[in-house]
Amino acid sequence: MTLNGLESLIPDSRRVIFDSDIEEKYLSDTLGRLKGRAKALVFPESVREVSDIMKYAYDHKIPVTPRGAGTNLVGSTVPADGGIVLDLSRMNRVLEIDKDTFTATVEPGVVLKDFQELVEQEGLFYPPDPGEKTATIGGNISTNAGGMRAVKYGVTRDYIRGLEVVLADGSVAELGGKVVKDSSGLSLKHLMIGSEGTLGVITKAIVKLIAKPQESLSVLLPFNDLHTGIRAVLNVIRGNLDPTAIEFVEKKVVALGEEYVGLAFPYQDAAAYILLTFDGDDLEEIYKRVEKLRIIAKESGAKDALVLRDGETIDTVWKIRGALVKAVEAKSEQEPVDIVVPINKSAEFIEYINDLEQKTGVQMVSFGHAGDGNVHLCVVRGGRTQEQWEKDRKEVLASAYDKSSELGGLTSGEHGIGLSKKKYLKKAADPLNLQMMKQVKLSLDPKNILNPNKIFD
Amino acid sequence: MTLNGLESLIPDSRRVIFDSDIEEKYLSDTLGRLKGRAKALVFPESVREVSDIMKYAYDHKIPVTPRGAGTNLVGSTVPADGGIVLDLSRMNRVLEIDKDTFTATVEPGVVLKDFQELVEQEGLFYPPDPGEKTATIGGNISTNAGGMRAVKYGVTRDYIRGLEVVLADGSVAELGGKVVKDSSGLSLKHLMIGSEGTLGVITKAIVKLIAKPQESLSVLLPFNDLHTGIRAVLNVIRGNLDPTAIEFVEKKVVALGEEYVGLAFPYQDAAAYILLTFDGDDLEEIYKRVEKLRIIAKESGAKDALVLRDGETIDTVWKIRGALVKAVEAKSEQEPVDIVVPINKSAEFIEYINDLEQKTGVQMVSFGHAGDGNVHLCVVRGGRTQEQWEKDRKEVLASAYDKSSELGGLTSGEHGIGLSKKKYLKKAADPLNLQMMKQVKLSLDPKNILNPNKIFD
Ligand SMILES: Cc1cc2nc3c(=O)[nH]c(=O)nc-3n(C[C@H](O)[C@H](O)[C@H](O)COP(=O)(O)OP(=O)(O)OC[C@H]3O[C@@H](n4cnc5c(N)ncnc54)[C@H](O)[C@@H]3O)c2cc1C
Ligand SMILES: Cc1cc2nc3c(=O)[nH]c(=O)nc-3n(C[C@H](O)[C@H](O)[C@H](O)COP(=O)(O)OP(=O)(O)OC[C@H]3O[C@@H](n4cnc5c(N)ncnc54)[C@H](O)[C@@H]3O)c2cc1C
Repeated sequence: MTLNGLESLIPDSRRVIFDSDIEEKYLSDTLGRLKGRAKALVFPESVREVSDIMKYAYDHKIPVTPRGAGTNLVGSTVPADGGIVLDLSRMNRVLEIDKDTFTATVEPGVVLKDFQELVEQEGLFYPPDPGEKTATIGGNISTNAGGMRAVKYGVTRDYIRGLEVVLADGSVAELGGKVVKDSSGLSLKHLMIGSEGTLGVITKAIVKLIAKPQESLSVLLPFNDLHTGIRAVLNVIRGNLDPTAIEFVEKKVVALGEEYVGLAFPYQDAAAYILLTFDGDDLEEIYKRVEKLRIIAKESGAKDALVLRDGETIDTVWKIRGALVKAVEAKSEQEPVDIVVPINKSAEFIEYINDLEQKTGVQMVSFGHAGDGNVHLCVVRGGRTQEQWEKDRKEVLASAYDKSSELGGLTSGEHGIGLSKKKYLKKAADPLNLQMMKQVKLSLDPKNILNPNKIFD
Repeated sequence: MTLNGLESLIPDSRRVIFDSDIEEKYLSDTLGRLKGRAKALVFPESVREVSDIMKYAYDHKIPVTPRGAGTNLVGSTVPADGGIVLDLSRMNRVLEIDKDTFTATVEPGVVLKDFQELVEQEGLFYPPDPGEKTATIGGNISTNAGGMRAVKYGVTRDYIRGLEVVLADGSVAELGGKVVKDSSGLSLKHLMIGSEGTLGVITKAIVKLIAKPQESLSVLLPFNDLHTGIRAVLNVIRGNLDPTAIEFVEKKVVALGEEYVGLAFPYQDAAAYILLTFDGDDLEEIYKRVEKLRIIAKESGAKDALVLRDGETIDTVWKIRGALVKAVEAKSEQEPVDIVVPINKSAEFIEYINDLEQKTGVQMVSFGHAGDGNVHLCVVRGGRTQEQWEKDRKEVLASAYDKSSELGGLTSGEHGIGLSKKKYLKKAADPLNLQMMKQVKLSLDPKNILNPNKIFD
């Protein structure tokens, strides 16, 4: 099959690339391990063009894989069934910042980092803060991205007021709006959020902003041993101190990050750390919370409570934290896991993973958004042969996902399911849930052309 | 058709009532104007029983109307197509309060007021606070209820972590869980929230709690004229003072409430008021915000800024505010409207309604969750004949909904669509949106037995 006529839908021929001219990276995700194939790669610049392409794809029953920055870790941008890769990165205008309604209207290809900077210049703040700042807002919405600040501020879903979406047949739907509340029928907007490109192509979003917090500081709690550190997390959570972020990380993992970015944590003599951020408008009030934290930390066996106020030190610490996935990746192939468990089960889960590591000899670097139970693991390949790696990985992942189910956890807290986590979702989820998802999917995409074979078969 | 065999599904015959033995109130909503008919009224006490009834209904293709406390204002519990009324009010146990995960697990028939009191005794707090405290949590979820505290805390949707839902064919789905984050496939949970009983019967919910704020106070801003008061709302919102509630109300409306509850506002000489609440753990910090409010209020033409700290005065003021719908209703038949517009359009909308009132002579009592753009109107019948009332009501409502669309508003901010608002949703919404809703509905309820004919035809 050749895609006759597709080029005529896009006025600029440089924005339609065919077959072997398509760069490899457009056939994969950020890990680059799973590869698909595509007949065409298109860079639309307007909702009109997206609609025309979808109409074309619908008429010809051609699979379409929407793509933002391709930073996902789960193969969700792999065009497994061929067809068209629809790259939204050129639709990257911030259309409006509306200070009266605390909203911004953006195209899907706007890059998170650029957007955060832009709104902060205006005294505003876009709280969702997933680790990879080169991701697009459209990708963030489609994966319901989380990130560091989710403990206090919630996830991407909580900041989406309205969406413009192109459906499988090319029709254009407006969901929600600038309004704050909405009980006007079934929430198609919430259905779209986190749907990984399987229900529609997001071509515009109205996102909620808040006023930029005036003050912010971080606190580092070092612990002498892993166990004490993990157990302290729950005490900190129970303290109800309204932290922006609560991260847990082992010293040996930090060391990888330090090496990778060439910087060092301000406190070295520890086996594990809890790293927190606090923000607000009133420094005194923040310090009151920090004082309470100090007491809890001491009672929980922390060696110290370092208050980090200096911009450079804060940057250093968070840069190291932010680089952990890449630091591990630089050493060895790895399989990222973002299981989420109830917040009071993080400790038990991390301890289970540590035991599993001991027992199996498979290195599993764990660090986590401890404050929201979203534990990140990197299962490290090391020197294994392909065969051995597949066997070992399969084994430890089965154990990890089973444990998470036992603890009331879910397959993905923020990365999504895509292609890589399908088998784990299939195992963890009730078949009824997958059946319902399929029915809903087919009701909106009856020809199954939008990112087919993602999330479920 | 008689419902042979239905009684055998419920062990206690007092929980299955047939035909003419069914009390009238079960055939309507809280307004009692629209009436349906039913073959049976059932009070299940377990998910098993709900499932059995749904299986029966599915096999026999019988419509089922789920019902909580029946306090809705939009006819959403009217069994318009006959069949079975499924009253969940006996499933009213709080199954767990989990202080570690800040969640409670409840059955759907738990009454909001009881639940709020219970968790507050534990030092916890359930922020959603719709006006009618005898409503059930299941009803609140099914309408995505809002309420007074939505400005700061959001709506019911924001507090739902997990749901157990019985589908049309009787199968039982678990959606979400105790976890905070979830990117594990299409969000069926969010699809259920606000679906007004059209997609499934909620039989259990895991809701999010927060720590109870230690301190709270209210502030009353009186204004000499309506216009100044309305215009001040946006200044207050822009002030970014993190208020819990911002309500706008005219003096003449307050007077109705005062008469109804037999209490008086602490400041009488005004034409309009803005009423705010602030809460937090630190009284000093709250007062800092109040001081900022004082400045904004003065600049915006408020006559005063009364800080209400005394429990009794606060109760009085909020009791009057809470009684407005009922106060109007006690005087005359009325049609409630809960249009939502972008927060910076509330003033324009309220002024439009006031002009409309002048022009048409139809009294339209407006008061509103001004802080979130959710304006509540009562269109008052007064002494009109039925014919005249229908004519006049139709005319002013058409104007009101058109104006709201023009301002980027939506048909319902929190009450839902049910039966009464269908025609307005149909007019305001793009036909594509309604088409999508229908497709999704039929994908999960192919025989169209769950609360049929609600939201859309
Ligand atoms: C170092 C690193 C750190 C990370 N940290 C985090 C983190 O803290 N939290 C987190 O949640 N994620 C994290 N991620 C994962 C990733 O960045 C997110 O999933 C991000 O949301 C993907 O955005 P993207 O623009 O790259 O989308 P892509 O990877 O291009 O696409 C992701 C999915 O969204 C769909 N999609 C993209 N754009 C659209 C559109 N406009 N319409 C419809 N569907 C669309 C795609 O089809 C695909 O299914 C991290 C990744 C890396 C590499
Ligand atoms: C004086 C007054 C003030 C009010 N103030 C507010 C307010 O401030 N904010 C607000 O949002 N609303 C308000 N309401 C409206 C009403 O109280 C809410 O809509 C409430 O959520 C309805 O709850 P309920 O238990 O009475 O549900 P019902 O009225 O019994 O049902 C409402 C809808 O939910 C469905 N339903 C109920 N239970 C279930 C279940 N278990 N599973 C599936 N579907 C179910 C029904 O089928 C129906 O479609 C007010 C009403 C009154 C009378």
